[in-house]
Amino acid sequence: MLKDCLERVRTQGPLVHNITNTVTMNDCANMLLACGASPIMADDAEEVEEITALCAALNINIGTLNARTIPAMYRAGEKAGALHKPAVLDPVGAGASRLRTETALGLMKRVPFAVIRGNSSEIKTLVQGSGTTRGVDADAADAVTEATLERAVAFVRQAAGQLHTILAVTGPIDLVSDGERTYVIRNGRPEMGRITGTGCQLSALLAAFLAANPDSPLEAAAAAVCTMGLAGQLAFDALQPGEGNSTYRNRIIDAVYNMTGEQLEEGALYEIR
Amino acid sequence: MLKDCLERVRTQGPLVHNITNTVTMNDCANMLLACGASPIMADDAEEVEEITALCAALNINIGTLNARTIPAMYRAGEKAGALHKPAVLDPVGAGASRLRTETALGLMKRVPFAVIRGNSSEIKTLVQGSGTTRGVDADAADAVTEATLERAVAFVRQAAGQLHTILAVTGPIDLVSDGERTYVIRNGRPEMGRITGTGCQLSALLAAFLAANPDSPLEAAAAAVCTMGLAGQLAFDALQPGEGNSTYRNRIIDAVYNMTGEQLEEGALYEIR
Amino acid sequence: MLKDCLERVRTQGPLVHNITNTVTMNDCANMLLACGASPIMADDAEEVEEITALCAALNINIGTLNARTIPAMYRAGEKAGALHKPAVLDPVGAGASRLRTETALGLMKRVPFAVIRGNSSEIKTLVQGSGTTRGVDADAADAVTEATLERAVAFVRQAAGQLHTILAVTGPIDLVSDGERTYVIRNGRPEMGRITGTGCQLSALLAAFLAANPDSPLEAAAAAVCTMGLAGQLAFDALQPGEGNSTYRNRIIDAVYNMTGEQLEEGALYEIR
Repeated sequence: MLKDCLERVRTQGPLVHNITNTVTMNDCANMLLACGASPIMADDAEEVEEITALCAALNINIGTLNARTIPAMYRAGEKAGALHKPAVLDPVGAGASRLRTETALGLMKRVPFAVIRGNSSEIKTLVQGSGTTRGVDADAADAVTEATLERAVAFVRQAAGQLHTILAVTGPIDLVSDGERTYVIRNGRPEMGRITGTGCQLSALLAAFLAANPDSPLEAAAAAVCTMGLAGQLAFDALQPGEGNSTYRNRIIDAVYNMTGEQLEEGALYEIR
Repeated sequence: MLKDCLERVRTQGPLVHNITNTVTMNDCANMLLACGASPIMADDAEEVEEITALCAALNINIGTLNARTIPAMYRAGEKAGALHKPAVLDPVGAGASRLRTETALGLMKRVPFAVIRGNSSEIKTLVQGSGTTRGVDADAADAVTEATLERAVAFVRQAAGQLHTILAVTGPIDLVSDGERTYVIRNGRPEMGRITGTGCQLSALLAAFLAANPDSPLEAAAAAVCTMGLAGQLAFDALQPGEGNSTYRNRIIDAVYNMTGEQLEEGALYEIR
Repeated sequence: MLKDCLERVRTQGPLVHNITNTVTMNDCANMLLACGASPIMADDAEEVEEITALCAALNINIGTLNARTIPAMYRAGEKAGALHKPAVLDPVGAGASRLRTETALGLMKRVPFAVIRGNSSEIKTLVQGSGTTRGVDADAADAVTEATLERAVAFVRQAAGQLHTILAVTGPIDLVSDGERTYVIRNGRPEMGRITGTGCQLSALLAAFLAANPDSPLEAAAAAVCTMGLAGQLAFDALQPGEGNSTYRNRIIDAVYNMTGEQLEEGALYEIR
């Protein structure tokens, strides 16, 4: 049950090592605290192995990757692999620059990621080795909608199998697949795309949920995606007249902070294919 | 009409490349999303040319410049120049350290900035090659007020002509000049100075407005300045008892998110000299 | 009187140089503005000496220390020492990695810090030269509670004397000692631990309070700790149904923004031992 996945995060309070972008790292830290986990951000190559060893999971996000932090990503990722700790990759902007695409692909070769989460364009880039990404947003042509759902499910299932990981492809409809079963998730609001970093925050959540639910990674990943989407809906309903994307950002984190297992279980909108 | 400038941003959704400081980059990203644009932050020298080429405008802010990011600023700025994409410079703290002053002046030599936005002390530093800056705030002696307005308008107009750029000098009264015409703008609230990064956010807005309005850069710049100032007024009016600068920050971004062209047209307080 | 300490910050508006982590630097900047001070963030070794010289205090926080910023911390710290400006150290995560422990200890050897603020595990690590830190949070075993208070007061007093600095050890009960007198402070709320960076914000406040109250550093430090804790209480009381840690973060900064000297004087809960 998704409910149990969230409750285990609350009970265990996993410590999550984040090597993430400077744009949204504050929100990621507060989102981890909201779900009951604890964040630590550390991206110097000298210390990342120690920090990963201390933590229950690792979240690598390439949103503002640079010459200094890329080696830290490799070292932390390999340490997580060696210690069998779940690692999440958020390939922000893969396809937008050679550096992003190559770093994401390079990390995937050396780190056994438990989950890779991105928008449809980023994931397509990683699967095909190239692609078109509109900055950090997905190409409209790549979006998973009701019209393209069947093909998208087949693509994501096959890609997850090929990459030996769980893929979480988020957009109008979210897909979470381990290569066998695929969760088709209809939580969320389009307005979440008007906030910077909702994807980054979800990746942080994924790391926490995977850490607390080692025996059911696919369900844990689906629970994280539903938690984020449901929080987006609850927060949207709570918006007052005159409030916009900045307050919406806070209300989403607040909604995760206050979310109960029952709320998640009742509010999660998914089918398994 | 200023109204059209905002509406073109909403319609076109320009992608803006930001090389900006780590203090306010989250707010800058959310502000760009609020106005209808899309942000991408990327500051590694290896990728910035590709990212600039992908974008409709470039926003360079030296607020936390460093040995790693300065070369990226040059490369991105020169690429923007080569591709005739509008570039904005925010010379945060020019005058406060040699590194800041020299970097700003160096960038100005090699990049044909469409707009340079700063407070009066920063702009004076750039025009004179030296100056006194109280950290990242303007010296009181430099502030543009009703008492100093006439002289300030003459100074900004002449400096803009000399630098072949649009200068946006913000403070109690904002001046936007292309060396011929000067917008004197009286929107805004003094309390905006108690929030970190309202200037940075305006610079990001300027990049978006310039990108969407290539045929009327001066009017676009004035529209961005009025949008920010008006948002500051609307957000201030919306403050509840007990709310302070942190909530005010969110409400300003929210106000831009919800601002209509009509609101801007009616609320903009400016004269052209 | 604590009241005077806050009011001097409001009157003098000290400029504070921060070399701090990228996770919470925006909140630190807004917190400094909330208390009446002005922030400048600058962490490139080339410019930090000039920036420190320009400022009234220096705040060094190692939360996301790295190979580029560590030398800047040393240079700024030594400059502050040479100019007799108060410097604050926040040894985030000392004990969690060798790099953090050694950097904090190294800085303490070369910089005459006016205040060192951390949680009990971090401070224990610095005093003993080693320790156990659960990421950036304190080990439960180290927490200062009513049950462990007497021993903790003795430890902190002795350590402050030995280190020739003011120690501010924050947790369920906060202790501020200069080696002779120790403030035992019972302001604050446990929910503050569910927000990232409340400790970092307090360290920034400490720098501002020390700068504005050079003749009474211990009282100034206690006033800063009481201000933060009282803001946490006032903000908690102001939370609306459905609000969580993200809104709470804003409301704490707002509470400092609106706090009067009288409020602080009446709300501060402390005894001196």
